[in-house]
Amino acid sequence: MTSVDTTGERGHEGHGHAGHGYLAEKDKFIRRLKLIEGQARGLQRMVDEEAYCIDILTQVSAMTKALESVGLGLLHDHMNHCVVEAARESDEAANAKVDEAMKAITRLVKS
Amino acid sequence: MTSVDTTGERGHEGHGHAGHGYLAEKDKFIRRLKLIEGQARGLQRMVDEEAYCIDILTQVSAMTKALESVGLGLLHDHMNHCVVEAARESDEAANAKVDEAMKAITRLVKS
Amino acid sequence: MTSVDTTGERGHEGHGHAGHGYLAEKDKFIRRLKLIEGQARGLQRMVDEEAYCIDILTQVSAMTKALESVGLGLLHDHMNHCVVEAARESDEAANAKVDEAMKAITRLVKS
Amino acid sequence: MTSVDTTGERGHEGHGHAGHGYLAEKDKFIRRLKLIEGQARGLQRMVDEEAYCIDILTQVSAMTKALESVGLGLLHDHMNHCVVEAARESDEAANAKVDEAMKAITRLVKS
Repeated sequence: MTSVDTTGERGHEGHGHAGHGYLAEKDKFIRRLKLIEGQARGLQRMVDEEAYCIDILTQVSAMTKALESVGLGLLHDHMNHCVVEAARESDEAANAKVDEAMKAITRLVKS
Repeated sequence: MTSVDTTGERGHEGHGHAGHGYLAEKDKFIRRLKLIEGQARGLQRMVDEEAYCIDILTQVSAMTKALESVGLGLLHDHMNHCVVEAARESDEAANAKVDEAMKAITRLVKS
Repeated sequence: MTSVDTTGERGHEGHGHAGHGYLAEKDKFIRRLKLIEGQARGLQRMVDEEAYCIDILTQVSAMTKALESVGLGLLHDHMNHCVVEAARESDEAANAKVDEAMKAITRLVKS
Repeated sequence: MTSVDTTGERGHEGHGHAGHGYLAEKDKFIRRLKLIEGQARGLQRMVDEEAYCIDILTQVSAMTKALESVGLGLLHDHMNHCVVEAARESDEAANAKVDEAMKAITRLVKS
């Protein structure tokens, strides 16, 4: 989770926010989102087969947790890259990135 | 959201929790879960195309909210049917269903 | 239907939902809320003494959990009493109480 | 070191993490925590007077939101100061502070 982006392989040269720091983890995040997609399909099946409500709710909670965990992972990478880079750029850049991250965190906390 | 339960087609005759009360709403829930499945695919695309982290997080929050809302809808139907029916059966049945519902609610609150 | 419960008439004899069901647990809830009040004071002290932010946040999370747990406890008692009683009264009463409980649950889940 | 932080009166000279960046906001946070303490007392009164459960739950949700909002405010200041400062120090310092902040964020999201 920590590492940070060591070299130039992120294709950073020139184009704005390419990379965003999670490239190395891209596959991992896609894999986790595929599992979540599968959970959404599993839930449709459960509803269709009229599974017991409480059992469906247990799966809804599990899926919510999995999704939250992906969100926190993405945020972690974002902080380790974009926020840290902005901090090294200037106070304005740092404040802007922190404000933006805080808005995302607030949405995660409230959702 | 409230009563539902149209008639005898729930196969209620005798066997405990068949039907589970959300039959009339089944299609609505499946539709909403299909949208959520689509959001999970959209997120994979965003990660794959290396969209900006904060934009991905905004989608994660939207998807979490949609999922939570399905959970609350299912819970509503469950309370209107299973919990209410159990209350009419006996104190023991009522307490058991309330305890079970509270466990599901606790998981929703904490997830 | 809201406040109700004026005095000694809580002996339940006959009148629907007087008492609100949590009398036996009243002291327990007040004790837990006193602890939470103490946590709020402890947080003021930490901020005043400029404790480390992360340590303060740990206490904020602990206090939030304690508060949530009181909310879930009150909801449990409410369901075991008011919702169950309403279910025995009529469909309308049941639906009204379930709707009302669902609104409270939604606020708990989103807060 | 970004916004806030007026001068040297933070007693920074030498001791590790004195100050923590939220000094200017200290009074604001203490005021908000005092209100939260008042809410905890109000809840005790409501339980003692046997207010209607749902009304108590509404207050519990309001208090939870207020507390969450204090947590997010403290986190914002922490990110603007400690995390930004660490980012300027070294990669190791940055990673350590981001990891620590993420743990606090995870607790906030899950509580």
